[in-house]
Amino acid sequence: MRNIAVKVSYDGSKFNGFQTQPYGRTVQDEIEKVLRKITKESTDIHASGRTDAGVHATGQVFHFFTNSSIPVERIPIALNTILPKDIVILTAVEVDERFHARHSALRKTYRYTIDTGKFPAVLGRQYRLHHPQSLNFVAMQEGLAYIVGEHDFTSYTSTRSTKAHHVRTIYEAKLESEGLFWHLTVTGNGFTYNMVRTIMGTLLWVGQGKKQPIDIKHILERCDRSLAGPTALAHGLVLAEVAYDIQI
Amino acid sequence: MRNIAVKVSYDGSKFNGFQTQPYGRTVQDEIEKVLRKITKESTDIHASGRTDAGVHATGQVFHFFTNSSIPVERIPIALNTILPKDIVILTAVEVDERFHARHSALRKTYRYTIDTGKFPAVLGRQYRLHHPQSLNFVAMQEGLAYIVGEHDFTSYTSTRSTKAHHVRTIYEAKLESEGLFWHLTVTGNGFTYNMVRTIMGTLLWVGQGKKQPIDIKHILERCDRSLAGPTALAHGLVLAEVAYDIQI
Repeated sequence: MRNIAVKVSYDGSKFNGFQTQPYGRTVQDEIEKVLRKITKESTDIHASGRTDAGVHATGQVFHFFTNSSIPVERIPIALNTILPKDIVILTAVEVDERFHARHSALRKTYRYTIDTGKFPAVLGRQYRLHHPQSLNFVAMQEGLAYIVGEHDFTSYTSTRSTKAHHVRTIYEAKLESEGLFWHLTVTGNGFTYNMVRTIMGTLLWVGQGKKQPIDIKHILERCDRSLAGPTALAHGLVLAEVAYDIQI
Repeated sequence: MRNIAVKVSYDGSKFNGFQTQPYGRTVQDEIEKVLRKITKESTDIHASGRTDAGVHATGQVFHFFTNSSIPVERIPIALNTILPKDIVILTAVEVDERFHARHSALRKTYRYTIDTGKFPAVLGRQYRLHHPQSLNFVAMQEGLAYIVGEHDFTSYTSTRSTKAHHVRTIYEAKLESEGLFWHLTVTGNGFTYNMVRTIMGTLLWVGQGKKQPIDIKHILERCDRSLAGPTALAHGLVLAEVAYDIQI
């Protein structure tokens, strides 16, 4: 059996998330349908993690096993020819049989974008949270710094999380402005359920002056989801990159 | 009667163009419907020009007359509250009764974007023409320079044009790369039917080596549409700005 790792991008607007669900269109279903057509096998794919309904990706990774002899460099174009337009395969490489898109992942990077303009920029507004009320950029940057390092992120995790523990390490977290668009970029060894969206929602509190920057740290320490801000809407979030010890 | 000038942006993906048509959803219809609701008058709007089905705008301008006493600064928010998400009003100003969005326009700027990546960048692909085949950037820049100045643009005008003459002045034309995205930006005193898209289609011929840069000039001089390249697809085109002697 060959093990193939694939980097995929998708526009999450019209998906009920990445992972197969009882109802709704999912990225996984669309990809498996096409892979089964190409490999003539009952192929399952395994992603680095699920993304929620409405969340986008420019660098999601999955792997699958196949006996098909299709040349690996043909896989992206073969899939893209059949896939719907909101999924684009970027690369495919043959990997060791022990490679697992989730278990082998070293780092993930998410990006959340807000549009701070009085009115939303119409082109691509479906990829940005519109926040026209005034925000304190520097206070948000200051608050954000407290999430870097190893922490128990329970306060910034959905109460619907099924994970036993929420300790994760954040390697880098930055807030940058590109004109009226502000990008939050967070890189860590893993993320709990709704973690980036809850951090964003709490940072907005800081930006609005409802909380002080240091409160990001205080909330973190209390391990209580009810203290953090609202979960920011899914459509501003992009899974930007998943890093491994090999190049995908 | 007050005369109100309005700057509007729209995502053209789901419109059958700007102007009212016998069939299909149009930007004009959507705006007039909302204006009539707000002014309680049978309001017609007059734009700087129509845009074709699929073409976007970040700076279209229209004007309308009204007896309504609504404060002008309230107009954008009042309209945006009701308008569909793919139309966003940016500004509204009260103007002299002689102001006409089309006749008073001094300059227009259009932007056409191509994505030269092997596979399309999925987020916002609906706003870019994907052109994965290799293109000669410098040759395209060189060819583009020939359209600057006053010319008869018949060769770069749809044969369905109903205009008596096609002489227009281009003040500036540039091709710039933003990574894999290449932006064509053209500013002129006016544009004939499909002019920017036909220039883009012909520039792609130059980029592919099917034509030499100087051919842009030769084709221009012949005043024969059949000599120019194909009309590039509408979805890569944005009406970026319409300039007047006042600030809209």
